[in-house]
Amino acid sequence: MCELLGMSANVPTDICFSFTGLMQRGGRTGPHRDGWGIAFYEGRGYRAFHDPHPSAESEIARLVQRYAIKSRIVVSHIRRANRGRVCLENTHPFGRELWGRHWVFAHNGQLRGVKRLPLHFYRPIGSTDSEHAFCWLLDRIRARFPQPPRRPAALWRYIHTLAGELNPRGVCNFLLSDADYLYAHCSTQLSWLTRRAPFGKACLMDADMMVDFQAETTPDDVVTVVATRPLTDNEPWTVMNAGTLAIFDAGEPVAMLDR
Amino acid sequence: MCELLGMSANVPTDICFSFTGLMQRGGRTGPHRDGWGIAFYEGRGYRAFHDPHPSAESEIARLVQRYAIKSRIVVSHIRRANRGRVCLENTHPFGRELWGRHWVFAHNGQLRGVKRLPLHFYRPIGSTDSEHAFCWLLDRIRARFPQPPRRPAALWRYIHTLAGELNPRGVCNFLLSDADYLYAHCSTQLSWLTRRAPFGKACLMDADMMVDFQAETTPDDVVTVVATRPLTDNEPWTVMNAGTLAIFDAGEPVAMLDR
Repeated sequence: MCELLGMSANVPTDICFSFTGLMQRGGRTGPHRDGWGIAFYEGRGYRAFHDPHPSAESEIARLVQRYAIKSRIVVSHIRRANRGRVCLENTHPFGRELWGRHWVFAHNGQLRGVKRLPLHFYRPIGSTDSEHAFCWLLDRIRARFPQPPRRPAALWRYIHTLAGELNPRGVCNFLLSDADYLYAHCSTQLSWLTRRAPFGKACLMDADMMVDFQAETTPDDVVTVVATRPLTDNEPWTVMNAGTLAIFDAGEPVAMLDR
Repeated sequence: MCELLGMSANVPTDICFSFTGLMQRGGRTGPHRDGWGIAFYEGRGYRAFHDPHPSAESEIARLVQRYAIKSRIVVSHIRRANRGRVCLENTHPFGRELWGRHWVFAHNGQLRGVKRLPLHFYRPIGSTDSEHAFCWLLDRIRARFPQPPRRPAALWRYIHTLAGELNPRGVCNFLLSDADYLYAHCSTQLSWLTRRAPFGKACLMDADMMVDFQAETTPDDVVTVVATRPLTDNEPWTVMNAGTLAIFDAGEPVAMLDR
């Protein structure tokens, strides 16, 4: 099992607090010692940090914690390797360009036989089943929509259909983004939480750390955090149902597609 | 004008010394205040840092200088914007996947009318003519070689032909890598230097810094550095001819294709 962390916000927001919690699971409070990665969108631009070393001991992870990069969409992952050796090219999130947008993907689970799915446009660089599944997803989206569809809901439904095709192969919790939306698919385990005014205090489960969001935000801020398991113990996380694809836009849940 | 910096080495090598010199040109000793980026290969994996802020003042640039990432191929760029506004998605080097390999591209110059060149598979995310030229290059390589050619020289010659098609449009100094080779195309200004045993001392032109490579290397190390202008003032840099594509493998120049 790996741990996923995603964020969607209506204003550029730093993820230092949640990231600090997640990083503890990378070798300190969790068994996820096989690397980590995080992708930040800044407009159409994209910034990613990857490290095949345990996040709790990573110099680059400390930079990301210290240097508050502000972003509207974040996708992060810490890894416990099942398939594919521990190396940089096997470290999530993976990225590819489609329609002149940068897409990112991070996955938690194993998918039996996924490498037998044929690929046309995109090829994996590493050897994980996750990256193969991502290439297959984008291949199918590109074939179905050579241009971005006018109504985003058509794309949302198609991504839900594709996730449903992957699901029977094993465990398929994933975070995906196309620079506009954050997609979160729950196969077995994924939770989310939206913070908005009036903001309160939150306590990390995995580190002795508390933050008062009242002091860090403006009244108009809306921020959703998605994680494999809740990161705080005093906030009302929503535990997702198996088979649901949640779509977040500017911090708000805009669609929940159920199986 | 932007500044390019590339490295090819036969063992994973850090680029701290040369990068320190380059970064000074980003707003201190040079006018290149519009961002910078650097890509490091680690095997098939790839790590990139981009910052739209001047490199001489960049927190991330300081991390890269301090935290010696070791790599066999590096491509770096500092930018003075001509075309395309200053933002993350317009910051070189650009990256795309082809044949399951990560390709990177950094360009110095302007290319008239390059955005009228048709694109099929790859689309720019930002608005620079450089990224459009990169997408066109990869489109053409993909069309000509759906699979990697058996003899790499066929690919080298084709890249040289494509560079020759771009060249009449303006200035086309670029660094390109496919994770195996470093390609350096000189349109107006590019120099390179190979360091090997017996190693000596080198003095940066742009910062008060000297390094004794004898103390930093083993006798078998071979490292080539490519830069827009020589970075040191006491080493025998080779100034490239206009129209030449140089190909470096494991620190050694393996081909020089002239117009």
